[in-house]
Amino acid sequence: MTAETRRSSSAITGPSLLDRYREVRARTEALCGPLAIEDYVVQSMTDASPAKWHLAHTSWFFETFVLEQGEEDYRPFHPRYRYLFNSYYNTVGPMHERPRRGLLTRPTVKEVYAYREHVDRHLAAFLERGHPERIAELHPVIVVGLHHEQQHQELLLTDLKHLLSMNPLRPAYRAGGDAGAERGGPATVPAVDWIEHREGLREIGFGGKGFAYDNETPRHREFVPAFRLADRLVTAGEYLEFMADGGYDRPDLWLSDGWAAVREEGWRAPLYWERVEGTWRRFTLNGLRPVRPGEPVCHVSHYEADAYARWAEARLPTEAEWETAAEGAPILGNFVESERLHPAPLGDRKAVVAGAPGPDPADPRDRPGARLPAQLFGDVWEWTGSPYSPYPGYRPPAGALGEYNGKFMINQMVLRGGSCFTPVSHIRATYRNFFPPRTRWQMAGIRLAQDV
Amino acid sequence: MTAETRRSSSAITGPSLLDRYREVRARTEALCGPLAIEDYVVQSMTDASPAKWHLAHTSWFFETFVLEQGEEDYRPFHPRYRYLFNSYYNTVGPMHERPRRGLLTRPTVKEVYAYREHVDRHLAAFLERGHPERIAELHPVIVVGLHHEQQHQELLLTDLKHLLSMNPLRPAYRAGGDAGAERGGPATVPAVDWIEHREGLREIGFGGKGFAYDNETPRHREFVPAFRLADRLVTAGEYLEFMADGGYDRPDLWLSDGWAAVREEGWRAPLYWERVEGTWRRFTLNGLRPVRPGEPVCHVSHYEADAYARWAEARLPTEAEWETAAEGAPILGNFVESERLHPAPLGDRKAVVAGAPGPDPADPRDRPGARLPAQLFGDVWEWTGSPYSPYPGYRPPAGALGEYNGKFMINQMVLRGGSCFTPVSHIRATYRNFFPPRTRWQMAGIRLAQDV
Amino acid sequence: MTAETRRSSSAITGPSLLDRYREVRARTEALCGPLAIEDYVVQSMTDASPAKWHLAHTSWFFETFVLEQGEEDYRPFHPRYRYLFNSYYNTVGPMHERPRRGLLTRPTVKEVYAYREHVDRHLAAFLERGHPERIAELHPVIVVGLHHEQQHQELLLTDLKHLLSMNPLRPAYRAGGDAGAERGGPATVPAVDWIEHREGLREIGFGGKGFAYDNETPRHREFVPAFRLADRLVTAGEYLEFMADGGYDRPDLWLSDGWAAVREEGWRAPLYWERVEGTWRRFTLNGLRPVRPGEPVCHVSHYEADAYARWAEARLPTEAEWETAAEGAPILGNFVESERLHPAPLGDRKAVVAGAPGPDPADPRDRPGARLPAQLFGDVWEWTGSPYSPYPGYRPPAGALGEYNGKFMINQMVLRGGSCFTPVSHIRATYRNFFPPRTRWQMAGIRLAQDV
Amino acid sequence: MTAETRRSSSAITGPSLLDRYREVRARTEALCGPLAIEDYVVQSMTDASPAKWHLAHTSWFFETFVLEQGEEDYRPFHPRYRYLFNSYYNTVGPMHERPRRGLLTRPTVKEVYAYREHVDRHLAAFLERGHPERIAELHPVIVVGLHHEQQHQELLLTDLKHLLSMNPLRPAYRAGGDAGAERGGPATVPAVDWIEHREGLREIGFGGKGFAYDNETPRHREFVPAFRLADRLVTAGEYLEFMADGGYDRPDLWLSDGWAAVREEGWRAPLYWERVEGTWRRFTLNGLRPVRPGEPVCHVSHYEADAYARWAEARLPTEAEWETAAEGAPILGNFVESERLHPAPLGDRKAVVAGAPGPDPADPRDRPGARLPAQLFGDVWEWTGSPYSPYPGYRPPAGALGEYNGKFMINQMVLRGGSCFTPVSHIRATYRNFFPPRTRWQMAGIRLAQDV
Repeated sequence: MTAETRRSSSAITGPSLLDRYREVRARTEALCGPLAIEDYVVQSMTDASPAKWHLAHTSWFFETFVLEQGEEDYRPFHPRYRYLFNSYYNTVGPMHERPRRGLLTRPTVKEVYAYREHVDRHLAAFLERGHPERIAELHPVIVVGLHHEQQHQELLLTDLKHLLSMNPLRPAYRAGGDAGAERGGPATVPAVDWIEHREGLREIGFGGKGFAYDNETPRHREFVPAFRLADRLVTAGEYLEFMADGGYDRPDLWLSDGWAAVREEGWRAPLYWERVEGTWRRFTLNGLRPVRPGEPVCHVSHYEADAYARWAEARLPTEAEWETAAEGAPILGNFVESERLHPAPLGDRKAVVAGAPGPDPADPRDRPGARLPAQLFGDVWEWTGSPYSPYPGYRPPAGALGEYNGKFMINQMVLRGGSCFTPVSHIRATYRNFFPPRTRWQMAGIRLAQDV
Repeated sequence: MTAETRRSSSAITGPSLLDRYREVRARTEALCGPLAIEDYVVQSMTDASPAKWHLAHTSWFFETFVLEQGEEDYRPFHPRYRYLFNSYYNTVGPMHERPRRGLLTRPTVKEVYAYREHVDRHLAAFLERGHPERIAELHPVIVVGLHHEQQHQELLLTDLKHLLSMNPLRPAYRAGGDAGAERGGPATVPAVDWIEHREGLREIGFGGKGFAYDNETPRHREFVPAFRLADRLVTAGEYLEFMADGGYDRPDLWLSDGWAAVREEGWRAPLYWERVEGTWRRFTLNGLRPVRPGEPVCHVSHYEADAYARWAEARLPTEAEWETAAEGAPILGNFVESERLHPAPLGDRKAVVAGAPGPDPADPRDRPGARLPAQLFGDVWEWTGSPYSPYPGYRPPAGALGEYNGKFMINQMVLRGGSCFTPVSHIRATYRNFFPPRTRWQMAGIRLAQDV
Repeated sequence: MTAETRRSSSAITGPSLLDRYREVRARTEALCGPLAIEDYVVQSMTDASPAKWHLAHTSWFFETFVLEQGEEDYRPFHPRYRYLFNSYYNTVGPMHERPRRGLLTRPTVKEVYAYREHVDRHLAAFLERGHPERIAELHPVIVVGLHHEQQHQELLLTDLKHLLSMNPLRPAYRAGGDAGAERGGPATVPAVDWIEHREGLREIGFGGKGFAYDNETPRHREFVPAFRLADRLVTAGEYLEFMADGGYDRPDLWLSDGWAAVREEGWRAPLYWERVEGTWRRFTLNGLRPVRPGEPVCHVSHYEADAYARWAEARLPTEAEWETAAEGAPILGNFVESERLHPAPLGDRKAVVAGAPGPDPADPRDRPGARLPAQLFGDVWEWTGSPYSPYPGYRPPAGALGEYNGKFMINQMVLRGGSCFTPVSHIRATYRNFFPPRTRWQMAGIRLAQDV
Repeated sequence: MTAETRRSSSAITGPSLLDRYREVRARTEALCGPLAIEDYVVQSMTDASPAKWHLAHTSWFFETFVLEQGEEDYRPFHPRYRYLFNSYYNTVGPMHERPRRGLLTRPTVKEVYAYREHVDRHLAAFLERGHPERIAELHPVIVVGLHHEQQHQELLLTDLKHLLSMNPLRPAYRAGGDAGAERGGPATVPAVDWIEHREGLREIGFGGKGFAYDNETPRHREFVPAFRLADRLVTAGEYLEFMADGGYDRPDLWLSDGWAAVREEGWRAPLYWERVEGTWRRFTLNGLRPVRPGEPVCHVSHYEADAYARWAEARLPTEAEWETAAEGAPILGNFVESERLHPAPLGDRKAVVAGAPGPDPADPRDRPGARLPAQLFGDVWEWTGSPYSPYPGYRPPAGALGEYNGKFMINQMVLRGGSCFTPVSHIRATYRNFFPPRTRWQMAGIRLAQDV
């Protein structure tokens, strides 16, 4: 927990935090609405977790870091859950191995919901009747817990998509989702336009009020040379041209490790794409649907994003460039609240959701004089060319929450901007997401940059 | 299907076969009674299958090999089940990969039960109203299907035990199972007595009426030298002595591959044994319970059985020896019908279930003059020293059922006698079970033999 | 060491044993004549060993089992060689791991030859001047050591072939070896004729004078049903027909594990076969040469031999059948002494080497009334359908030499008859060679059998 | 090849380049002086290459990129060497797989030396008699080739050390190397002193005359916050304290991936350290010797360096910090020319080698007012906290040499300063070495930094 976080969140009063808590917790459960019991249980690969595990782990977070600290004589719901639902916090003890999360048929889904209810009840009691000093102290931890839960909301959808895709029946997450969800929007998208930025010493990182993760701090200066940023995302249609031009067959386009991945994994297209009777389809939470040329390409690894950029005579932006370009941009875009659950073609206004009160939620490209890139927020996480490293002067918080972000600062690349699986209230211009460069099951896509 | 099978089963009339069919099918579902939905879904290792898969696969067997052959215009319940629930029959087309059986959250358990119901309804209609010639023709296939389903009943329990054992909560398959299940029987068992057999040219293999698998045929002659067979199984107490004497630390006791397994897998005790506060416990379908010295040791690999025998200055019997010794023995013992779900100490009469009508179901050791070994049937499958090879003159049946047994005749060892997970009506003296020598999750134990 | 061995070898007098010792040891070194220093060092796969290691290990055998036992105050040549050159004898202490044999650039080849010379000098001194009682006692061990060294002579060639085949330059073991080596013999071979044997109780295993390994004993009775044995080996031309008929694409022809091997390893032809400009060539110790249709097919796994047999509507013989058929056959054939280093087409008389004094070394098929199969000995080891198991009553010798054979009696199949890499004096009709069924780098081929 | 390189090197005249060529090539061969033929052949792990391969590959570089371009009608020494000795240049065709480099017993060492001699002869002829325009054009490529060969000189020693360490005999690379090599120097080293640097916009990267790799360019501005740098390397004695304080047992000190490495690899000490009778020894090219507390710790991974820094309440420097601190420092230190082949304790003046003419080669710490850190160059490569990424505006050269550096810019960390295995003429303050963070077989150590 950073000092900033602590300061800012202390402004929020108890009751409103409880409302917020209830809202976020309910949202997680609503996302599970379409699931059969069976869908909660299975771990489709080591990187993914069962839905049931997400439900329990987020509750474990509040139980361990709030209730056990704040409530006198708190008795855990179950003595072994501390072991079963700890993800990676060595500080609070040993844990069930990650690759074995899918072996836990018990506790049952019903028991996990009872666990949630128990934690919710105790947390409400704590906020309503707890010692004010304890509440003030744990307030920032609850705020972290809510952002943590929002991250797991996104992972829940991401992992479910992967799980369902492994089934030859290709079951949709929700029936009839496609009817209003993936349709609409213009048939074509305009050519890329480049937005130019002068060189300059920039302030990067979070320094404002409100919540931010420790890895976004401290705000600091970086010298950013002049650059150009594409005013929209790379589309599936453009990616098809890369494929048609032998993109997956030309080692000169790839980083060495990326080329090794192409051969070892047999990559020939983005994840979830299937060639069915001569046309490309992609599996989505709405089922198997044809690829639409105007939609942003998604489910590509960093290696594919990087190779595509090289092919297009461009490169990926650095995260400082991205943040420079996003300065002052309103948080609006195709987020989970649009219920599309898939990136939308530029100009599909129905897919746009607005975040915190701000400018007109119309496509910013339309606003005269704005010169803000489109699709900055939502749709797809945008791979940057920046390895995930600590900012100068970064210090992880003391205690278990210090394990939240800092210990992963190696072998990963930064992504920016959120996606159509992200809650709109979760994202910020300074938000740093990170995944290893081989990762494909995340809702990640491509925006290009160039040297000037 | 062997000629014998065909001949014998043609004697059974339609209606009684249907009764038998209903009984076996209902028994499978009864075994699933204690399961939560979640328990049906997960595959705990490649060797095991989810309960749901067992339920569907056994139905697929009847659908594919009976209904699709026997019923005109039969329309499969679902067009992809042929792919999803084929186990290993290349003859009837491609199939879902074995290690991915646990990724199938759909069809749901409810849908699988609907599938069973559909198949049962059609099979009943076929037997009741089908063309007599078709029925006669497919009669032996239905009989195979019922024995096949019984095998899967045993696998269902075996796989569930493994799955539940992977859960740090160590959940029991059934609540309170232990109360009447594992208790009772005498506190000690008598010392081993050896039953001697003279050398001779023996008839081995199935040659009678009734059903047998193709791998038990043809009945043929083998010369069996003189041997001695232990009159009871090796107990957990005896196995503890082997462990205390450094059994897992002395390479001289082990086959070379077995010693490699000890080191690679870190074996220090039978599977499911745990050292809890200084005493050995073993996980069972009734939960985690103390090891009882008088009970037969179980969940040992062939390598452990072989090493134990060497330590005890004995050896494992060959399958011809075992069959010679079992000649004329009544089918009685601790089978799944006793509901113990764990091997019972010798002399625990409540655990003994009788098979086909025959001699008095008392412990055969009590019968004057009998000199039949005890615990021959039920309790644990007994590892033999015989590799699983075709009998002289063996020919697999034509068509898909030819894949049932013959293609596995390599790198496996024969086990005999059935276990406490086996239905009593499933076993015969000539029955050949087989598993690779590293296998431990099967309910397998040890009986000793010696040269004379 | 079996009692038989002990008895028989005690008849040999000291001096003649020393002559024999010198002859065998010199032969090993002669086989290394064509090698560059570099060729001695590398381990091309875990199953193979470097030539240098073979040279040292065979010396270690005599040092450990003879000199250290027989010579008072014997000081090992080097204190660490006991660790480095022990293969698998746990009884005499820990050892260098097998997969790391190729990491030992030191001792150098020169040092290894010095080690050999040291051992040879001491062994000669022992035989010439040692205590007669010690000599008598260790005599059988020396005899085992010589047979052991002959086995390593064969492995040396087998491993070198594999090593050289991994080099894209495809270097020949010896220059110009082909000139006289692989040529000659008739262009075609006659169709297979089947030799029929009546059923009967047979004596199987070694029971004569002279040397035999423990695994060939005791001589015992087996009932062998009537069978037919092919009078010659399967040829490369016949195997090409199997390939052309989709042999590697039809799962119905394969054991289940064999089919898994086909897919995992990508087998499309025997090992060492390459398709070069439309014709099949096979790499040999003489270099890369065209496949000749009349030559016996070699470098096939048990799985391929078994699949071929099924395709040909036959099966592999059991080892008892093979031994029954070989009774009374003279030891003659294409052995290492012919210097072909590749199997020869039937009727190529120049390839035939005679063993112990016996009948005319001409092709036995020519001998009127003989009805002995051709190519029984030499050319290729013949895969049988028999798993490698102990004979009834088998007991391994006490001490370290008990590890020689017995501990490998699992997961392997028996081969019979020796090959063109085997010294003629090494083979017997009762000789049991054994390898896991996936093995392809051994000089192994196929002879068919059928039920009568 | 960067424009800078091209410009600068064109100043060098032909003859002096040839002298330089001969000198570098002779140096490579001199490093192989102590080797037995056997030592040239083996690849001890995938990351390493056989000495023979290094000798051939560096020649292949000149043959492919100079002779084939510059000499009309040049005929390669051997048609397959293009395939065998290409390392990773996809642009010039397919290549022998890296993990199989140790399978090539042919060409022999003698043949490889003949290859070198052939290339040397042709290169001399080209430089002496070639077309001046061709020479001018290929001049920079030859310069790259010489630096490339120097890199392989370092790898040669690094790989040999690994190879010899795998041998239980622990053979020294050179006999008696220790006599004068590892001895001497003061018994203790002074406590760390911190050198402080103010924040500022710095020029980073190569922008001068002479040679540099493309990855050091372009020279560009970076804002570097205030920092402190340790004035010497971390010693083995200090690292022992970290170990004694549970360094390898405390997950809180490690990056998450680093902690995984600790457990998977069983790390308990730096690579090559062995506990012998209660004292720590480390294997060196001079044999197995006791760890000396004052010597810089070496053969640690980035993870270990990072964990040590966290334990010491410091961090690793960024590469911009390192380069800032190194500005104006003379190239002097313990390089390969000192023939120590192991890092030397601070103050061991005999180990110090001077590079290009510059300041007094005494320990810079002694120079009044200098405030340059000691041990900046030579001894050990210093892990930085900077991922290996392209500098802003970086462009790889066109053609095959574009594969030299750029395609590796992912999943690696930068190291700075050269080591005791590096030729002194090879290093620069702007030099960027890079390895994955798990790497331990490189001569890498630790220097600490802190925020101000």
